[in-house]
Amino acid sequence: MDEWRMKPIGHVRSPYTDAQQVPKGVGAQHAAEGTIEILPEFEPGLLDIEGFSHLLVLWVFHQADGFELVVTPPADTRPHGIFATRAPRRPNPIALTVVELLSREGCHLRVRGVDMLDNTPVLDIKPYTSSVPTEQLRRGWLQEAEDRQPRQ
Amino acid sequence: MDEWRMKPIGHVRSPYTDAQQVPKGVGAQHAAEGTIEILPEFEPGLLDIEGFSHLLVLWVFHQADGFELVVTPPADTRPHGIFATRAPRRPNPIALTVVELLSREGCHLRVRGVDMLDNTPVLDIKPYTSSVPTEQLRRGWLQEAEDRQPRQ
Repeated sequence: MDEWRMKPIGHVRSPYTDAQQVPKGVGAQHAAEGTIEILPEFEPGLLDIEGFSHLLVLWVFHQADGFELVVTPPADTRPHGIFATRAPRRPNPIALTVVELLSREGCHLRVRGVDMLDNTPVLDIKPYTSSVPTEQLRRGWLQEAEDRQPRQ
Repeated sequence: MDEWRMKPIGHVRSPYTDAQQVPKGVGAQHAAEGTIEILPEFEPGLLDIEGFSHLLVLWVFHQADGFELVVTPPADTRPHGIFATRAPRRPNPIALTVVELLSREGCHLRVRGVDMLDNTPVLDIKPYTSSVPTEQLRRGWLQEAEDRQPRQ
């Protein structure tokens, strides 16, 4: 059986200690600042990371238990397939957040845009290098849900 | 010890059977078409995915063996930290590719933009819902390497 074991390369220090505190749903803004603390043994892997304005952070939904294939996410009142959402109870509980890198001190990365809980395990960090132009994006049920529930 | 076991939700069918065939380095274009074959038991998780034009595909560098914290990637002649690159030999060998969703038939997703090898295990799929505006991106060593090696 194919199986891979993943271990933390570090942890998130976040102002959120409870999932209820994290902004969710239509129009949620993620402007919270936090720190990604990389384990000292991995610090050489951060060489030159300061040159990137944005990072892709892969982390674990470590409080998720099991998975559901069809879910009703906070942004909608209708059910959707888990792979068409970012909901936490996934077959592999990996999450992805784009953060803005504010500064680095050794193995600590100060970032803006955290939506993780305090102490969340981080699996990987990659530089954000290119974007799909907004005019080429179709956003499916999320756009429809936003159209039905105009932002306050 | 914190550790998570990840299993494939499906596999990539790609025109590439050898890593040498995948376009790499400065100016590499990823226009190849391929298919993501989700395992039948996970098909309900694809509900409504057709509404999204682009998907984030998380997959495993299944041919990578061990990791290196400082690497010289194909786009440059200078070494950089692994977390400032997308190189394969990472502490957790997870890769991320943005693909354009062309069509879906059952548990098969036809996509454009594959840079995976044939038979690559897929861990997760998420909808691509927003972009960082290009004018807000700084691309560090990659921009510098591109500036030194103009595109042909």
